[in-house]
Amino acid sequence: MREVAILGTGMTRFGIWEKKTNTELFAEAALDAIAASGLEPRDMQALFFGNCLGDFEEGQLHMAPFAHSAIGLPVSAPAQRFESACATATVAIRQAALLVAAGVYDVVLAGGTEKANSMGTPLATRTFAMACHAQTETPTGLTFPGVFAMAAHTYSSKYNIPLPELKRDMAEVAVKNHFHGAKNPKAQFQKEITAEMVLGGFMVADPLQLLDCCPFSDGAAAVVITDMKRAKELVAKPVAIAGTGQASGGPLAKQKDLTVVRARVETSRAAFAQAGLTPADVDVIELHDCFTIAEILALEAIGFYGFGEAHGAAARGETRLGGKGPVVNPSGGLKAKGHPIGATGAAQIVEIVEQLREEAGARQVQGAKVGYVDTLGGDFGTVCNIILRRG
Amino acid sequence: MREVAILGTGMTRFGIWEKKTNTELFAEAALDAIAASGLEPRDMQALFFGNCLGDFEEGQLHMAPFAHSAIGLPVSAPAQRFESACATATVAIRQAALLVAAGVYDVVLAGGTEKANSMGTPLATRTFAMACHAQTETPTGLTFPGVFAMAAHTYSSKYNIPLPELKRDMAEVAVKNHFHGAKNPKAQFQKEITAEMVLGGFMVADPLQLLDCCPFSDGAAAVVITDMKRAKELVAKPVAIAGTGQASGGPLAKQKDLTVVRARVETSRAAFAQAGLTPADVDVIELHDCFTIAEILALEAIGFYGFGEAHGAAARGETRLGGKGPVVNPSGGLKAKGHPIGATGAAQIVEIVEQLREEAGARQVQGAKVGYVDTLGGDFGTVCNIILRRG
Repeated sequence: MREVAILGTGMTRFGIWEKKTNTELFAEAALDAIAASGLEPRDMQALFFGNCLGDFEEGQLHMAPFAHSAIGLPVSAPAQRFESACATATVAIRQAALLVAAGVYDVVLAGGTEKANSMGTPLATRTFAMACHAQTETPTGLTFPGVFAMAAHTYSSKYNIPLPELKRDMAEVAVKNHFHGAKNPKAQFQKEITAEMVLGGFMVADPLQLLDCCPFSDGAAAVVITDMKRAKELVAKPVAIAGTGQASGGPLAKQKDLTVVRARVETSRAAFAQAGLTPADVDVIELHDCFTIAEILALEAIGFYGFGEAHGAAARGETRLGGKGPVVNPSGGLKAKGHPIGATGAAQIVEIVEQLREEAGARQVQGAKVGYVDTLGGDFGTVCNIILRRG
Repeated sequence: MREVAILGTGMTRFGIWEKKTNTELFAEAALDAIAASGLEPRDMQALFFGNCLGDFEEGQLHMAPFAHSAIGLPVSAPAQRFESACATATVAIRQAALLVAAGVYDVVLAGGTEKANSMGTPLATRTFAMACHAQTETPTGLTFPGVFAMAAHTYSSKYNIPLPELKRDMAEVAVKNHFHGAKNPKAQFQKEITAEMVLGGFMVADPLQLLDCCPFSDGAAAVVITDMKRAKELVAKPVAIAGTGQASGGPLAKQKDLTVVRARVETSRAAFAQAGLTPADVDVIELHDCFTIAEILALEAIGFYGFGEAHGAAARGETRLGGKGPVVNPSGGLKAKGHPIGATGAAQIVEIVEQLREEAGARQVQGAKVGYVDTLGGDFGTVCNIILRRG
């Protein structure tokens, strides 16, 4: 297998894009990524395209060949859509990386797009909840805030942390990620918040309040993937894909413990083994903070903290820019950068690539050499992780 | 690259399955395929899962990990959903074949499922049409019968074939595929029809009448893929994947000629080149006869007939069981076997595998050694082809 590298990256600002279609948003990100790679659309040999809900957002199924056409890729380049709920783009990029490593393709464009904000909150809430299991979960009225609220209660109970204390720790995750997002010109929310604002907010699903939750977002992100040898000829600072992992958790009923996403344990183990690295080697992390409690759970399952030990990390300043690190979600995360579900994984990779190239500006993690991407799909059904390092 | 083989196959009967979910249907097909491979669910290293409209059919997004769980695959096995409109399962299987060829996985389960009948005709018609381009095609009121009706008119005009004559030739395609379907216990329609019944039918989109059109169907199909060396140890009659191709046509406006699907020309050329074969080597074909005219167009673009020459093939009996061949759609095709869109490509492969193993019973093409699978996604946006031969 060849070593695989990320060449150029591109993303739109995340937020509200009522007047652009998904294919227009994706083309914008993709053309930036291709230009940053020193290549042309005609050089792309395949498109691995992520989108979750284009049929509900725009009445558009089968979006991949239309995105392909909007970018001007050659007819001979296959374009295919992936959907793995919120892990969609990470799965698409991992598949692209596997095929480039194997030598099936030399240059692949991969990423995703979503218009989850423009579809409106009621429809977004209902359609997101379709990633819950339709027979055993949906009939109970479960939506994602409910899933993560249950996880927070379980965490409080399992580790004997009084709920008010856990809520304050969770609030500090939101404060940190907004602090980071305020430094990211592509973030949906570029303003700082306080723990008091989080704790004084509208209750969504006890104990999760409004600012514990990521927003609905529109946006797109894309990367160009090739082999490291070619990458070194094309760009000054290629970034290597050192290891990947993906696993499947099934419906929530298969989870013995809501605080430890079982697919994530498998996934991170596989990714670290392939990379020959350990959590101690990682300088910067983009992980799936769809809710504040989700960041805490991810840090533990991947192995950055012991179980029951990550809840105070943000409050202690460890995971914040300038903290002892690893720095978590310097982009602002899903929480502040935004969460256009089909694009999220690609945007996480865009951030890590910028960090490893030392091009992240005011949110640069000094001397970052190894970065980690974690994306969770649905209520624990899919986890996909990618480890990146300087090429 | 390793040579890749199909081990076991499985499919439900196509038709109406109101009381089973998509994951139940897929699990039934998949468990049959795994058992026929001499393997257990725990042996599957990945699931490449096709589904188009589960969100509209059942309120189920992110279906892949739930199918994975229903079959009992290990958590470590990634499960991902593909959607390429009607070419969905073919694309999923091709991706699986590429990764097995490359040695990334040794054993992969791939296929698809759909409940397009149970959702009801009005919703099926509207949601299928979402595979048309939402900005340039949908606003005109275009649905798929309209696309292929335009292609039929163009064919009539381009080759100076009076429309009544072309309609009779098209009707003979339907007669042939129903003749085949009557011999297939898995087909939705197991009864013969006459040209008079086709020509006397309800007008859907002039010149396409009811029996020119494939039905809405529920059903699932799956295959197990491995490398040829392992396949020979596990089953008596492995079938080799000799060549594949996939290409992207973009929206209909990019088609210069509605009678020649440009992505199909690229795709078939690539598949034949990889296989080192020509159309003359093919004994049996499963191709995308969503409408009778579609079978004619596919036969020409792939190179089985010259342009303007395939319309009379069924009327002359050439493509019927016992004809001079190659035999086209011995399963009954989409027309009689049915068209559960996310499963269709997998079922085409199931049929060709049975033919090459000489296990197709009353619809066996005698001595078939090479088979061809052609699947079209949307109104010409995606084409995926797979060439199979005896292992």
